[in-house]
Amino acid sequence: MPDDSFHVFDTTLRDGAQREGVNLTVADKLAIAKLLDEFGVGFIEGGWPGANPKDTEFFQRASQELTLKHAQLTAFGATRRPGVRADDDPQVAALRESGAPVVTLVAKSDDRHVERALRTSLDENLAMIADTVAHLCEHGRRVFVDCEHFFDGYTHDPEYATGVVRTAADSGADVVVLCDTNGGMLPADITRIVSEVARRTGARLGIHAQDDSGCAVANTLAAVDAGATHVQCTANGYGERVGNANLFSVVPALELKHGRAVLPGGCLAETTRVATAIAEIVNIAPATHQPYVGVSAFAHKAGLHASAIKVDPDLYQHIDPELVGNDMRMLVSDMAGRASIELKARELGVDLGGDRAVPGRVVERVKELERSGYSFEAADASLELLLREEVGRPARFFEVESWRTISERRPDGGSVSEATVKLHVKGERVIATGEGNGPVNALDRALRSALEGVYPALGSLELIDYKVRILEGATGTHAVTRVLIESSDGRGEWTTVGVGENVIDASWTALEDAVTYGLLRQGH
Amino acid sequence: MPDDSFHVFDTTLRDGAQREGVNLTVADKLAIAKLLDEFGVGFIEGGWPGANPKDTEFFQRASQELTLKHAQLTAFGATRRPGVRADDDPQVAALRESGAPVVTLVAKSDDRHVERALRTSLDENLAMIADTVAHLCEHGRRVFVDCEHFFDGYTHDPEYATGVVRTAADSGADVVVLCDTNGGMLPADITRIVSEVARRTGARLGIHAQDDSGCAVANTLAAVDAGATHVQCTANGYGERVGNANLFSVVPALELKHGRAVLPGGCLAETTRVATAIAEIVNIAPATHQPYVGVSAFAHKAGLHASAIKVDPDLYQHIDPELVGNDMRMLVSDMAGRASIELKARELGVDLGGDRAVPGRVVERVKELERSGYSFEAADASLELLLREEVGRPARFFEVESWRTISERRPDGGSVSEATVKLHVKGERVIATGEGNGPVNALDRALRSALEGVYPALGSLELIDYKVRILEGATGTHAVTRVLIESSDGRGEWTTVGVGENVIDASWTALEDAVTYGLLRQGH
Repeated sequence: MPDDSFHVFDTTLRDGAQREGVNLTVADKLAIAKLLDEFGVGFIEGGWPGANPKDTEFFQRASQELTLKHAQLTAFGATRRPGVRADDDPQVAALRESGAPVVTLVAKSDDRHVERALRTSLDENLAMIADTVAHLCEHGRRVFVDCEHFFDGYTHDPEYATGVVRTAADSGADVVVLCDTNGGMLPADITRIVSEVARRTGARLGIHAQDDSGCAVANTLAAVDAGATHVQCTANGYGERVGNANLFSVVPALELKHGRAVLPGGCLAETTRVATAIAEIVNIAPATHQPYVGVSAFAHKAGLHASAIKVDPDLYQHIDPELVGNDMRMLVSDMAGRASIELKARELGVDLGGDRAVPGRVVERVKELERSGYSFEAADASLELLLREEVGRPARFFEVESWRTISERRPDGGSVSEATVKLHVKGERVIATGEGNGPVNALDRALRSALEGVYPALGSLELIDYKVRILEGATGTHAVTRVLIESSDGRGEWTTVGVGENVIDASWTALEDAVTYGLLRQGH
Repeated sequence: MPDDSFHVFDTTLRDGAQREGVNLTVADKLAIAKLLDEFGVGFIEGGWPGANPKDTEFFQRASQELTLKHAQLTAFGATRRPGVRADDDPQVAALRESGAPVVTLVAKSDDRHVERALRTSLDENLAMIADTVAHLCEHGRRVFVDCEHFFDGYTHDPEYATGVVRTAADSGADVVVLCDTNGGMLPADITRIVSEVARRTGARLGIHAQDDSGCAVANTLAAVDAGATHVQCTANGYGERVGNANLFSVVPALELKHGRAVLPGGCLAETTRVATAIAEIVNIAPATHQPYVGVSAFAHKAGLHASAIKVDPDLYQHIDPELVGNDMRMLVSDMAGRASIELKARELGVDLGGDRAVPGRVVERVKELERSGYSFEAADASLELLLREEVGRPARFFEVESWRTISERRPDGGSVSEATVKLHVKGERVIATGEGNGPVNALDRALRSALEGVYPALGSLELIDYKVRILEGATGTHAVTRVLIESSDGRGEWTTVGVGENVIDASWTALEDAVTYGLLRQGH
C-alpha cells in the first residue's frame, strides 16, 4: 500500500472535462470517481465548487453517495480575489463548504500573467497566495498549490516564479505543483527547472504537464527523476487542447519501469478495464492505439514478426500485457501470412484440421475481401464464420429471400422507421416486420422477430454498438461503406462487419453475421 | 536548405503501413510520397522491394512517375540470409534492382534475437551485416543500418550490441540507426545509451523510436540531445501497435524548440496541411487532439481562458499556430460564457449588433441543445445559422412538408434506396424523388432535385463526409444519434449537425442545414 510519500493525483473530472467534445453529467462524474478509486489513485480532483452548479452538486452528492477505498476527494479553486480578505471571498467559502478534505489552489506564477490577465501587482499576487493557503489550513484543509504557467514564468523571471513556490510552501501548502499549462516544455527543460527549484526552495514539488509538444508523459517522468513526488494526470490523457499527461501511461511507467509501487497492490492489472470504462462514460471511443491499454497496444500484424512470436512472445513486447490487464493479439490482414492465420485460428478455437491448404486459402480470401473494403482486424466474429466456411463447417441458420425498410417524416412532424424481412427457416417461409428508431434498428427487430419462433434464445441478443465508416475508392471507384456491429448476449460481446455501396446493405450483412454468430455461441 | 548534417527520414510507407487498419494501395503510396516531399523530408523509405509485390511495383512506378524536389527514395530490406553470399541472395538483389539510391538494411543487434528468432550464430550475424553493407556500397548505394531491438540488446549485452554498430560503420554504413523496436524505453535510458554508444564507436548515429511507452517523440529528441543526427519518424505517428515517433511532432520541436533548421525554408508552415492530407489518404480520421496539427491543438474552451485570450493570445499557446499552418479556435460549449460567444461571432463574421442580451441568449440555447446531444464545436455552419436566428436574420429558403425513404434488397439480390420529399419553395409546392446508394444519399438527391429549379447554383454543392455517432443517454434516457455532414461547393467546406433518436431524422436535419448554409454562401 503506497504511503503519503508519493501522490498519484487525478484531475480527469476537472482538467480532463475541458477536452473538446466532452460534456460530463454529475452521474458521469460520480461513476468516473468510483473507477479512479478502483484503479487506486490517491487523490481525485472533483471540480471547482462554486464556479458552476454542476461541480457544486457533484461535491454535495459525492459526500453522500461515494464511498472511496483509496482516494481522497479534492476541490479545485483559485486564490482570493485581489483586495479582499480570504474570509470574505465567496469563491474561497465555496471551497471550504465543499466538504473536500483537500483543496488545490491555482496560483499565478508567471509575472506577465499576474500583470496582464489577473491585472494586479506582483506583491498582491503573493499576498493572495499566502492568505488563501493560510486561511484554508486554519480551517483544517490540506492544501496543494498549482503554480499555473510555472515553466514559462520561470524561463521569463526565475526569481518571481521561485518566490511563488516559497510563498506557497511557507504559508502551509503541502505540495507545490509546477504546471506546464501551455504544454510547450520538453523533458530536458523539465529536468533542469525542477532540479533548480527543488534546490532553491526545498519545497515538496509536484508536476502537471499538458501534452501540446507530445511529451506530457515524458515530462512527468522527467520531473519525477528530478525529485517531484506528486504527479497530476488525467484518464486517457483527456484535457484541454491536446490533453494532459495520461494517467494510464504514467502509472505503468512508474510501476513497471521505475520500479516504484505507486498504486495499492493488485490495482495495476485494472488499468485496461478502467481506461476503457472511463472512455465509455466520457463517450469517446477508446483510443485503439493508446500505450498499454489500446486494443492495438499488443497487436502484431507483420507476417515477419508473427512467425517469430510463435517462438518467444517476450522478445516482441516491452512488458507482459497481462500486467496492465491487456492481451496480445494477432491481426489478420493482407500483410499476414500463414503463421498469423494459424495463430488466429488457435486464438479463436477453430480447428484447421490437418489440411495444410486451409491457411493459404483463408489468406487469399481475406486479401480479396480486404481489397473490397472489409476489415477483419476488428471483426473476429465475421472472421471466425469465414474460417468455419473454409474448413467445411459453415454456420447457416436461415436463408434470406428479400427485405425492405422505410423511414419517413410525416406532415405532422412525427417520424418512424419500419422494416419487412422474408426468410426461409428450417424449410418454412417466414415474413416478419419490425419498427425501430432507424432503418437498421427496424431491420434488426424484423430479423429477430422472424427467427424467435424457432430460436427463442435470440431474445437475450442485443445490438450494443453500430459504427459506420465511408471508405473512399482509392483508385477512382465508388465510395463504399463499412459497417461494424457489436453485439452482446449478456455473457460476452462480438463484432461483425459488412461492406457495400449502400449503407443499409452493408448493415444487413453485418446483422446477418451478428445473429448467426450469436446462435452459434448458444450451441446451435 | 538543410545539408546532409542532419537527416529527417520518413518511414510512413514502410513502418507506418504496419498500423492496424491501414491498407495502402500503390497509388496511395505515391500520393503520400509526394506530400512528404512537399513537407521537405530528406529521405522517404518506400517499402521492402521483393518482400511483397505491392512494394516492388511502388519502386517501379516511383522511378517513372515521382519527381521529388527534396527527398531521396530509400529501399528497406534485410541483411543476406545466413550461409549465403550477398551476391547470391535474391532479397539483396531486389534491393539493388529497386533503383533506390539509398538502402536501409535491418540488422539484428540483440543476441537473443540472433539466436532465437534468426537462429544463427552471433559471428555469422556480424558477417551478414558486414557482407551486405559492403556489397551494396560496392554497387554505389548509400547504406543506412537499422539495428533492430538495439536498446533491449544493449541492456542485455552491451558488448555485442556495440559490436554490431562498429561492424556496420566499419563496413561502410553512413548512419547506424539505434531502434527501440519494442518501444519500451524512457528518455533517460535513451540519453544514457546513445551517449555511451557514440563515445564507444564514434559512428554517426540515428534513432528510430516506437511509442509503446507514450514517449517516442521525447525519446527521439533525447537521442538528438545525446548526439544522434538522423531521426526516423512516420506521418501522424502511424506504425505497428501503438505507433512510431510522430514526424509532425518531432520536426516542429526540432525547428521551433531546438532552433535547428531541419526542413527547407517555408516547409514548416505546411505541417498541418500535409498531416491532414496524409490522414485522408490513409483513410484514418485526422487525430483531432494531435499536437501541433489537430483541430483541437489550439482550441480554447474554458470560459476563464476565453476572457484572458482576448487580452493576449500568446500567453495561452506554446507556439504561434500559424508557424505550423494551424489556427487558434474558440469553442462554444456549455462551459463557455459570453466572452466565447462574442469571439466566435467575430470569427464567423456575424454582427451581434448592439444588443447585449444576444450572447446570453445564444449561450442558453447552445446549452439546451447540447444537453439533448448536439455538439456545435465541430459544426460551425449550424452554429452560424443559430446565431443568425438569434439576431433576427434567420436563413430560410424552403419549408418541409414531409419526406420518405425506402431501402430494399430484392429477391434477385439487387438492392436500391429511393426517397421522396415534399417541400414549399417560394410559394410553390414541389414534390421530387431521388435514388441513391443509401437512404441519406437518396434524400440528399431528392432534396437537391426539388430545389434546383429555383436555385440552379445548388448543382455545385457536394456532400463530402458523413459521420454517425451513437450517444448513450447518460441518465437512462434513450440513445440518440448525432450526425455530422461535411459539404463543399468547391470553394470551401462546412459542417452541419443533426440529432435525433432516428438516424434518418438526424441526417435530414443536418442535410437541411447543409443546403441552407450552401445557399447562404452563394449570396441568396
